Amino acid sequence: MADLDNSQDWLEALKWDADGMIPAIAQDENGRVVMFAYMNRDSLQETVLCGNAVYWSRSRKRLWRKGEESGHFQKVNSIRTDCDGDVLLLSIEQVGGIACHTGRESCFFNELNGDRWIPADPVLKDPKEIYK
Amino acid sequence: MADLDNSQDWLEALKWDADGMIPAIAQDENGRVVMFAYMNRDSLQETVLCGNAVYWSRSRKRLWRKGEESGHFQKVNSIRTDCDGDVLLLSIEQVGGIACHTGRESCFFNELNGDRWIPADPVLKDPKEIYK
Repeated sequence: MADLDNSQDWLEALKWDADGMIPAIAQDENGRVVMFAYMNRDSLQETVLCGNAVYWSRSRKRLWRKGEESGHFQKVNSIRTDCDGDVLLLSIEQVGGIACHTGRESCFFNELNGDRWIPADPVLKDPKEIYK
Repeated sequence: MADLDNSQDWLEALKWDADGMIPAIAQDENGRVVMFAYMNRDSLQETVLCGNAVYWSRSRKRLWRKGEESGHFQKVNSIRTDCDGDVLLLSIEQVGGIACHTGRESCFFNELNGDRWIPADPVLKDPKEIYK
């Protein structure tokens, strides 16, 4: 795929997929990759405007203001894209230290061990206490 | 989306997209996110078997043994998946310290600054020297 054209306006320079989406990786201030989701133009624009991560929920088909239910907002410090401009990397501060709906720090808690995925991180807070 | 079923075989437990792909994030030993690409079953199986990252090149429609041309292999230390099992996170050791075809450490070198993406990382090696 062609490299990003840095001379273009930032939104035009990105390569949106056929559904108008771009994948987004969220990395916290400790370098931990905590989440992966999708953004459309509206969610990315709101993210930049408001400073909190807003994704597009493909299952619910609506803007997903991360933290709107859990209080676990993601304050966005900076945004990068890759060489060909088809993925975003958000440097975030994870409010509450919990990104995952299971109550864990990161959504990436399942580690491959032999022929099974093993939960390798502790639950920091009972989801029932997060989503009341 | 439903949570990962840990009781299933690792390959069956993952949620492959309509094209039989799963997104994969590569993070190096310093915590730097260096690449984002896709894997199919064959590439993931070879990755686990051989210990070097193998992706599926969607543009070239073939297995992409990262480093096959550049020598910049990615030794895979561990593999994680997220809560719903539809993304992979590879913990890798980046041979040569360069993941990007532009000769940079990471593909994520374009940082948003106002209304433009600005290259924020140095080129460590001229691509002409990498791909001879």
